[in-house]
Amino acid sequence: MSQGKILKDKIAKSGLVHIMAAHSPLSAILAEEAGFDGLWASGFELSALYGLADVSLVSMTQHLDMVRAIGERSSLPIVADIDTGFGNAINVIHAIEQYERAGVAAVVIEDKTFPKVTSLVDDGRQELLRTEEFQGKIRAAIATRRDPDLLIIARTESLIAGLGEAEALKRAAAYKAAGADMILVHSKQKTPDEVETFVRAWSGNVPIVIVPTAYPEMNEERIKALGKIAIVIYGNHAIRASVTAMQDVFARILKDRGIHNINRDIVSVEEVFRLQKMDQVKADEKRFLA
Amino acid sequence: MSQGKILKDKIAKSGLVHIMAAHSPLSAILAEEAGFDGLWASGFELSALYGLADVSLVSMTQHLDMVRAIGERSSLPIVADIDTGFGNAINVIHAIEQYERAGVAAVVIEDKTFPKVTSLVDDGRQELLRTEEFQGKIRAAIATRRDPDLLIIARTESLIAGLGEAEALKRAAAYKAAGADMILVHSKQKTPDEVETFVRAWSGNVPIVIVPTAYPEMNEERIKALGKIAIVIYGNHAIRASVTAMQDVFARILKDRGIHNINRDIVSVEEVFRLQKMDQVKADEKRFLA
Amino acid sequence: MSQGKILKDKIAKSGLVHIMAAHSPLSAILAEEAGFDGLWASGFELSALYGLADVSLVSMTQHLDMVRAIGERSSLPIVADIDTGFGNAINVIHAIEQYERAGVAAVVIEDKTFPKVTSLVDDGRQELLRTEEFQGKIRAAIATRRDPDLLIIARTESLIAGLGEAEALKRAAAYKAAGADMILVHSKQKTPDEVETFVRAWSGNVPIVIVPTAYPEMNEERIKALGKIAIVIYGNHAIRASVTAMQDVFARILKDRGIHNINRDIVSVEEVFRLQKMDQVKADEKRFLA
Amino acid sequence: MSQGKILKDKIAKSGLVHIMAAHSPLSAILAEEAGFDGLWASGFELSALYGLADVSLVSMTQHLDMVRAIGERSSLPIVADIDTGFGNAINVIHAIEQYERAGVAAVVIEDKTFPKVTSLVDDGRQELLRTEEFQGKIRAAIATRRDPDLLIIARTESLIAGLGEAEALKRAAAYKAAGADMILVHSKQKTPDEVETFVRAWSGNVPIVIVPTAYPEMNEERIKALGKIAIVIYGNHAIRASVTAMQDVFARILKDRGIHNINRDIVSVEEVFRLQKMDQVKADEKRFLA
Repeated sequence: MSQGKILKDKIAKSGLVHIMAAHSPLSAILAEEAGFDGLWASGFELSALYGLADVSLVSMTQHLDMVRAIGERSSLPIVADIDTGFGNAINVIHAIEQYERAGVAAVVIEDKTFPKVTSLVDDGRQELLRTEEFQGKIRAAIATRRDPDLLIIARTESLIAGLGEAEALKRAAAYKAAGADMILVHSKQKTPDEVETFVRAWSGNVPIVIVPTAYPEMNEERIKALGKIAIVIYGNHAIRASVTAMQDVFARILKDRGIHNINRDIVSVEEVFRLQKMDQVKADEKRFLA
Repeated sequence: MSQGKILKDKIAKSGLVHIMAAHSPLSAILAEEAGFDGLWASGFELSALYGLADVSLVSMTQHLDMVRAIGERSSLPIVADIDTGFGNAINVIHAIEQYERAGVAAVVIEDKTFPKVTSLVDDGRQELLRTEEFQGKIRAAIATRRDPDLLIIARTESLIAGLGEAEALKRAAAYKAAGADMILVHSKQKTPDEVETFVRAWSGNVPIVIVPTAYPEMNEERIKALGKIAIVIYGNHAIRASVTAMQDVFARILKDRGIHNINRDIVSVEEVFRLQKMDQVKADEKRFLA
Repeated sequence: MSQGKILKDKIAKSGLVHIMAAHSPLSAILAEEAGFDGLWASGFELSALYGLADVSLVSMTQHLDMVRAIGERSSLPIVADIDTGFGNAINVIHAIEQYERAGVAAVVIEDKTFPKVTSLVDDGRQELLRTEEFQGKIRAAIATRRDPDLLIIARTESLIAGLGEAEALKRAAAYKAAGADMILVHSKQKTPDEVETFVRAWSGNVPIVIVPTAYPEMNEERIKALGKIAIVIYGNHAIRASVTAMQDVFARILKDRGIHNINRDIVSVEEVFRLQKMDQVKADEKRFLA
Repeated sequence: MSQGKILKDKIAKSGLVHIMAAHSPLSAILAEEAGFDGLWASGFELSALYGLADVSLVSMTQHLDMVRAIGERSSLPIVADIDTGFGNAINVIHAIEQYERAGVAAVVIEDKTFPKVTSLVDDGRQELLRTEEFQGKIRAAIATRRDPDLLIIARTESLIAGLGEAEALKRAAAYKAAGADMILVHSKQKTPDEVETFVRAWSGNVPIVIVPTAYPEMNEERIKALGKIAIVIYGNHAIRASVTAMQDVFARILKDRGIHNINRDIVSVEEVFRLQKMDQVKADEKRFLA
């Protein structure tokens, strides 16, 4: 069964799936152990891991390598954040071929121009592609996939770009008409209102995906009350948790002039061994090396 | 001025430098901001990031890519953990050529056989190379470097392998005789005693490097009291801090059924933007795109 | 249908398949157009492409990247040359997981020690693993593959190492007993005699694979007369052809002080466009960009 | 001495340098042995090697990896073909940082929009960036380089795009004003006339670079007669030579049902060993492994 089918089945079963951002196989393993339904192979998190602004600097090669590495260590379905598709519809075709071979469950393509700017930046450039050109990208993605269960999710940045709800709805409908399996609507308002209004107004018969980074009050209860939303993506909490912890631990080691205190407050080396499946390696050594 | 010279100067100035493990440019940026003197491009941390046991599965290509990415985002000198040198002396030559081009300050080569097992695993295989063969690796590294300030650090696993202090001292002297600029002595005893005894007994005139993961009581005060130690490496606290934080945050999001609570306890998205130098990008956009 | 099954079916149908070495997607495309039955993702050719000696310097990452790129552009089954498996049985497990995900039809693992030396070098070190240890590698590979049609081919260097036919036959039988689907027997004698004698003496009921680089007189007629051989691999003729042509063309351009003469003797730029499927791109541009 | 300075000195000494396209370390080694002055790290050749159309599908990561691999095996100065700079001025900054670290002598940036289409395709889209926006890219490149000898070469596609000589001259002057060290003017006319007219009309005081693929009659004699041209790039003859040879050899092997004939017409395996520096490895094995 393909990963796309697995993700569809999870949605069918529970109505709403919870997807956690992953920037590495390690964070993917932790998300799987915690109980999330899938992984968000986040361009923002990977850019942050590389210490680079999220403005189309990390290449498809780098993102795809990470997606593959994640897929080798986690059985969760992966929703791949391919930004704008790395260029035009021709680049989208190339991307879909490769992400499908890498075994992802879904790809999200956004309607910004390439190169893009992170959606959540204040006063960033937020230029959108013409609707027809973005429809071409969606059609190209649909025509390229071999497995019809590979979900093609169209992400509109209309609200981010300040174009208003009418434009957002119009674009969402156009993307759905072009074949999109779901619509991701993004907002950087500090409250859920903007997205809630959009969802209530949405009459297209494909599900909605949200990423409530900017409006954390949008919890499961409110999402379920709205209906129509199939996927909620927690877009950057893995990397933010890591930054928080490293800043704290690094400062304390230098202040303490040593690791004698901090050692008690972080997981043991043995816990890392467990995550690396060191026991499996030892068993394999006994089985195949002895 | 080469990074090797920069690291040597730091040691000359302060007597002891503090090196923090980094598994990504992001962790490197945080270590630099915290005030560490240099970075440990750790094979263990990178293996853990990939969710793989630290048994020579991560390739030189993958490690080198990460080292380069770190060097592009941090100005700190990098001490590259090249394990056994990825094979024999011929592989060491190939590795030194590439790590030197990548701009590292130092490389650490250990005297285990390839493929290796992580030093800290209980009851792991810990086979050492014959002394003469490892000397050949050191001589190959020395003969290959173009910059005499590129530090070649020989790491002995004698204590880890249970061969005792006499063998450790004998090997350390042999590696020094082969040209090693420093000796890294590793131990997995729970207290500093074993390493302290080694250091006191060491009469070679090259400095010692330690990695006090297993014996966290070995803080700066005790290190300085001993003398002879030039570098202390905190070998895996970045990844352990990250795991601790992600486990906590992931569990809370699922328990809370949303990010409304956790959002306050982790750094903001804006803090990640700062680390990604988003302001510089905006300034560059104004300067070169307008 | 998996690539392994496709290769098995080709063998079942024709008795003997012809596999051409490929060091790039381009050479793979040309081999497919020419009519070969499959591709040899050759470690020797890839090392040569990188200008490196074939002594375990090219990493698994680099080889795997090339294998994937080839698989994206050619539909031919790929026989992956994974040398010694990049280390011990644990490395073999890691390799099989990744090559299987990359979609290869078969892998060939050889019984040299790691790091290896190219088989055809005069007076090169040619150390073989103990039979039992190599059997462990084969068993590890068999236990790891998910698709039973992924062919695990054991390559013995016994003849290359000068251990004689009896040892070669004994090892081949041991590898077959460990689960190998086929036996690749290698020789660097200038005539087919050594390999022919081996094949005649072989009573194991798994097919034989040969690579007649050193003894080019071993053509299809002689191979079929022998029987028992399922695969003939032309191991390095793509890269040798390329070197020959580049040496000639480069010298002529400098001698002619221009490309006015050479231009007529090499394929046109339009022919390269054809191989790159430029027409497909133009059609896609019309379809999705207009 | 930096590679940029080495290239400048070669130009100063001989007036005109001959640069050969390279798609691999192997082709670079052959170009160096033949006597070329430098290497063209060609996007077209690398796309062709990957079997992909030259329309911005090969990523910067893939190109940069090849550039680094070439630089490790050849001492010739590298002129890096970075197409449009992989996006806008922000991408150019990122690219210059990395290509400079990789040790190239020069980069060529072209004034097409991203994603691009190969210049020599009949009836391909050939859209140019606004002059001011491309000037911003040049200024960004100049501001980013640390070594003032790293040559920033601006490539105009005005003639390819059918905009005429006046526009080409105007753009070339604007790019020179923005800081470009040289101007590459490209043409796909079958005769040198168009480029010759341009060169005669060029009164800017920076040298010109040409790539006479389409007009092979433009040999050294005619180039020197014109003056003003510092660099001639042979843009794709390495890959075209390789294709020609592989097509021939592959067809013959299948026709001959073996390699018994072809073996005499291509370089020996020993010649490949020589190019891989196998002798150096053997000497190193004696020196460091014995």
